[in-house]
Amino acid sequence: MATIRDVAKHAGVSVATVSRVINETGYVHEDTRKKVETAIRELHYTPNEVARSLYKRKSRLIGLLLPDITNPFFPELARGVEDEMQENDFRIIFGNSDENANKEKEYIQTFVQNNVVGVIASTNHPDTDTYRKLGIPVVFLDRTADNRPSVYADGREGGRIAAHEMAARGSRQITVIQGPASIRTALDRYQGAVDMLSSQGIAFNVIQTTSFSFTEAGIWAKELFERYPDTDGVIASNDIVATAVLHEALRLGKKVPEDVQIIGFDDIPLSSLLTPALTTIRQPAYDMGRASAALLIQLLENENIDHRIIQMPVTFTERETTRKVEQYG
Amino acid sequence: MATIRDVAKHAGVSVATVSRVINETGYVHEDTRKKVETAIRELHYTPNEVARSLYKRKSRLIGLLLPDITNPFFPELARGVEDEMQENDFRIIFGNSDENANKEKEYIQTFVQNNVVGVIASTNHPDTDTYRKLGIPVVFLDRTADNRPSVYADGREGGRIAAHEMAARGSRQITVIQGPASIRTALDRYQGAVDMLSSQGIAFNVIQTTSFSFTEAGIWAKELFERYPDTDGVIASNDIVATAVLHEALRLGKKVPEDVQIIGFDDIPLSSLLTPALTTIRQPAYDMGRASAALLIQLLENENIDHRIIQMPVTFTERETTRKVEQYG
Repeated sequence: MATIRDVAKHAGVSVATVSRVINETGYVHEDTRKKVETAIRELHYTPNEVARSLYKRKSRLIGLLLPDITNPFFPELARGVEDEMQENDFRIIFGNSDENANKEKEYIQTFVQNNVVGVIASTNHPDTDTYRKLGIPVVFLDRTADNRPSVYADGREGGRIAAHEMAARGSRQITVIQGPASIRTALDRYQGAVDMLSSQGIAFNVIQTTSFSFTEAGIWAKELFERYPDTDGVIASNDIVATAVLHEALRLGKKVPEDVQIIGFDDIPLSSLLTPALTTIRQPAYDMGRASAALLIQLLENENIDHRIIQMPVTFTERETTRKVEQYG
Repeated sequence: MATIRDVAKHAGVSVATVSRVINETGYVHEDTRKKVETAIRELHYTPNEVARSLYKRKSRLIGLLLPDITNPFFPELARGVEDEMQENDFRIIFGNSDENANKEKEYIQTFVQNNVVGVIASTNHPDTDTYRKLGIPVVFLDRTADNRPSVYADGREGGRIAAHEMAARGSRQITVIQGPASIRTALDRYQGAVDMLSSQGIAFNVIQTTSFSFTEAGIWAKELFERYPDTDGVIASNDIVATAVLHEALRLGKKVPEDVQIIGFDDIPLSSLLTPALTTIRQPAYDMGRASAALLIQLLENENIDHRIIQMPVTFTERETTRKVEQYG
């Protein structure tokens, strides 16, 4: 009797794709769908075997480790992972690492104890034995490590774009907010901004911060305008901090963007609902989550993989906290 | 040789409590801590047995089903669940139901296939066989069902408070935004508001909505001011919708709170960073998550449980989208 693997082989596609066609979940190209349907007919395959085939293996669990689900960037990422996994009948064990190496190690260990078949991790420590000696496929998400499977956005380029766009719109007293130094993605976007400002010969100030938390964001926003009251442009480490800076600027009676321009990073869902709406460097969080799950499934199914390292685009998302470029460019 | 259970019995506390004392995680009352430490000394218990004892059972997995992690109310809830579970060495399989009964049923089934020992579910269908015949402990979170273990906030009371406070601050052309009719918590807060306005003889208009999504919130906000341009007070179905209403009101040149007062529901982290900062009915999401996890652990350990139904307080959180009561009360 034909199995889902036979169908996949016959049609020249992945098991996941066959599953998507059968379950009518997720996107499948029309040509691919036809191929799969032909294979199903020719092999007299009956889809109720899917269930049997799916649960033959010991587990269809994967581990997902994120820094902190309460940072609004990560729910989108997690949702992307889950939707792709759910459509492919995988389930997720989930943990928050708080960027803490010990907590992370403990989670990875218990993932393994619970028989996960693969791991998606947003980690600052991809090169430790925790991952190198894991023995099951790992995809790094929102992070990258030399030549190992990963899905991430180009933070450095994002930083460069933010700095370039802000300068093109006339700010000359720019303050850059540096995110936590221990977080690779925060460092990348900071360095990108600094590179660009330096190369254009524009002076800038730096405010250092140690977390992306809501409660502390307000404190740094206050500190920024106390230390650098002449600031006319703020490149924030993420949208939470940018929102706090916007709030503080308005509280001080500054006009945004006339007196101060602000650019965030991430494009979390609330950013477009702020007044003025936040200009930001968008990372496609949901799509990144989906792509990481699809890559892990490919690794689990030993498919030929063309792209083990997937860099997603960052885009300048122009809203109302920056001026129009025509006036200044 | 003494086990962690012996220590717990000797000290007259739960295994989870002993674990918290040993691992120095989570809150333990000072008297309780002393009792546990005494028991550890008297029984010559060595904590490295914890690990052995913890992994004796087949699984320390629990299933967590939430409607949608990208709604900013739920990450806080999930984080509370996870922190409490993590401190007690449980791990979480996580799924989003999208309030879809079929997806929910499928998730619960695969939770069981993955040998979860208990379930925490935020569901609109607590009375179905999916839960009644599950055979493992279930705690309903952010929802309640007659006499079964649950942790929730009093939405109806929250709606009443919102209506009362808005009326006390002088709004007389109030529009109430009704959340999705299929979601019990949305209905509760709506009915609370309507009850209070009716009992005070205050007329009001209603805008019906079908989701809590960010993208649609803006559409309803526009509809609200088109249909009811004289609105001078908006009781929103949650903070996302309130944020969209605030954005639209400001876009139309209305002054908030002078021309229009707005009250949200939830108190998501960004609400305090809006300008003006959002007045809202706060639900203690993180604490609700923690409490549901603690209750499930108690059920798993067959402890004597005094409170199987835990109702958490809702609180009026006064910020800047409402007027001062002295002027009107």
